Amino acid sequence: MIFSIDRDILLNHLLVVQKGLPSKTPLPILYAVKFEVHEDHMILTTSNTDVAIQVLVDDHSLNIVQTGHVAIPGRYLIEIMRKIVAQRVEFALIEDKIIVIKADRSEFKLRLMDVEDYPEVDFLDLNDPIILDSQLLKTIIRETNFATANNEKRPILTGVNFKYQDNHIYCVATDSYRLAQKNVKIRTYSKEFDIVIPNKSLDELSRILDTYNEDVELYINPNKVLFKMNATLFQTRLLEGTYPDTQRIIPTEFPVTIPFNKEELLQAVERVSLLSPKDRETNYNIIKLSLRADHVVEMSSTNHEIGDALEEIMPSSDVEGPVIKIAFSSRYLVDALRAFSSNEVIIQFAGEVKPFVIKGNLDQDLLHLILPVRID
Amino acid sequence: MIFSIDRDILLNHLLVVQKGLPSKTPLPILYAVKFEVHEDHMILTTSNTDVAIQVLVDDHSLNIVQTGHVAIPGRYLIEIMRKIVAQRVEFALIEDKIIVIKADRSEFKLRLMDVEDYPEVDFLDLNDPIILDSQLLKTIIRETNFATANNEKRPILTGVNFKYQDNHIYCVATDSYRLAQKNVKIRTYSKEFDIVIPNKSLDELSRILDTYNEDVELYINPNKVLFKMNATLFQTRLLEGTYPDTQRIIPTEFPVTIPFNKEELLQAVERVSLLSPKDRETNYNIIKLSLRADHVVEMSSTNHEIGDALEEIMPSSDVEGPVIKIAFSSRYLVDALRAFSSNEVIIQFAGEVKPFVIKGNLDQDLLHLILPVRID
Repeated sequence: MIFSIDRDILLNHLLVVQKGLPSKTPLPILYAVKFEVHEDHMILTTSNTDVAIQVLVDDHSLNIVQTGHVAIPGRYLIEIMRKIVAQRVEFALIEDKIIVIKADRSEFKLRLMDVEDYPEVDFLDLNDPIILDSQLLKTIIRETNFATANNEKRPILTGVNFKYQDNHIYCVATDSYRLAQKNVKIRTYSKEFDIVIPNKSLDELSRILDTYNEDVELYINPNKVLFKMNATLFQTRLLEGTYPDTQRIIPTEFPVTIPFNKEELLQAVERVSLLSPKDRETNYNIIKLSLRADHVVEMSSTNHEIGDALEEIMPSSDVEGPVIKIAFSSRYLVDALRAFSSNEVIIQFAGEVKPFVIKGNLDQDLLHLILPVRID
Repeated sequence: MIFSIDRDILLNHLLVVQKGLPSKTPLPILYAVKFEVHEDHMILTTSNTDVAIQVLVDDHSLNIVQTGHVAIPGRYLIEIMRKIVAQRVEFALIEDKIIVIKADRSEFKLRLMDVEDYPEVDFLDLNDPIILDSQLLKTIIRETNFATANNEKRPILTGVNFKYQDNHIYCVATDSYRLAQKNVKIRTYSKEFDIVIPNKSLDELSRILDTYNEDVELYINPNKVLFKMNATLFQTRLLEGTYPDTQRIIPTEFPVTIPFNKEELLQAVERVSLLSPKDRETNYNIIKLSLRADHVVEMSSTNHEIGDALEEIMPSSDVEGPVIKIAFSSRYLVDALRAFSSNEVIIQFAGEVKPFVIKGNLDQDLLHLILPVRID
């Protein structure tokens, strides 16, 4: 196997497949990037228990002298490529077990792993894609993924639920204290599906989308979903189980609606949280919000050891409804507000012990819901 | 006690005294910033076992309505000031134990600590200063402090030795594997001194110097040194004990001298270190450097598990001396090269098992020395 290629091109492809390298695995061969060098292109593959990534490389800078298959230790290869400043790198297999990498006056000899040990990765068939705009997909991830659960108490909540119905995808994430819901209309029709994608896989996918601006094709089966981005395949396992019906916990009647400038509200929440005591269960800071009769909103926190904080916030336009007082983890409101692109948000209250809802003027079909805590 | 002040001004002063707050202390009062508000100025003080910092604030934005002394919990105060966006902040003492901080529509009430508990901090008398340019002082710290020891096996090596003789300060740092030495000429005369300043204190001082460009006054007694930067006093304890005589370990004869482009050398060392095995004692990567008969320099590393790396580097001008082969921890060479401002460096070798020395064309009176390791 002998080929040479532009260093930047190879590094960029490696940084994509890097996200499929395991951090820890009982199967050491998975620490390798599998290189399949064909006559006029090569294929790089990585995989772990969650995701599998494959990139087809047919850049015009790729010059293949001899075909072959090898498994190159991924971490070392990527570190070497990062540190090389030469424009071109050359790979040559020697003695069937060593890859020689040359770049200008640098020469690396890396011991290979046995490519025959690399497990077969089954990517889904590329039939009947659902087409999604890459930026829309990125937005969905940004607006929902943070609201998934981090711990494994209820594994199904560690992913985002994507549910197709009537040409829409309904995306929901919740850790049972707060919920994010985003609905998007899609261009292609699909069979119905109702899947839960692990939050870590979505994080990795989101990073790949940072440098990709075209359409994404989705292929779904009951256990996996495959995202195709031009020459890159990103496949992830799905979470097993039935996602809870979250629709019934979203209130439908909101006696109180308060509009805010998002940035002002965010800054006030962050300040008032500085002194606030921690919730025993979540370890997040509890703050109070109250709408006064004069329609000024007060946010406050009381900490017997440290001190008190009080913020007055003027609603950005007319308030609807009677006075109300509610307490909650400030972290949830901060996370939710940061997920909005809107400069104006409204908060809708169903009652002092009922979940409240945040919407934004520019974030279409996006809803965040936060459960209050009881205060004495 | 009542005063108001520009928020940016106060925050900048607080960020200076913050470096005197302890990370952990058995004396909780030291978590406070001491405010002494006088008729026309105020003094902020912090201290811990290593350093004491005092700032005199007499900014024209300071409006003092009522004098007084208080001890305000430092971490909370600084976090609040960071998050406030209002231009002005107002402080008022109530009930002798609570400070009320108002800024626009924000109000914080912080429980105070008892200012009477704050220990007396003795700053040295301001007599007979040694005058140093602040950027020169910063350069000394940058070029030497990294070479101090991190562990406490030999406590005296955890500081930088500053020794005055004949209108020069000789600065030395070593962890017994490598050494940095910088000599500077100073403008003022001084009594002789020979002190060792803790590396952590120098790190903190260096950060304060980031925003200070005028002369620094030094005041020294056998136990402490005080740096005066206009209205800021930074005092640190000194390390006790006699600093080793390092002069005798610096070779005087160098049969081999090789000039390098610093950046090329640094990049090659970083690449060749990627695969190199770790030294058992220091856990740093061992690499080999050899000067070939054709005057090309080879750097290499061999790792039986991972693979080998080889770099050829062309000296930047004429080489002096015979072929040589030497091995050392690459980390020491990387640290040393990064400390140089020079684009051209020379490495001088005294022999294959003797310390070698690095100098730079633009870094006057700076010398770095590295001990080799034995190779088989």
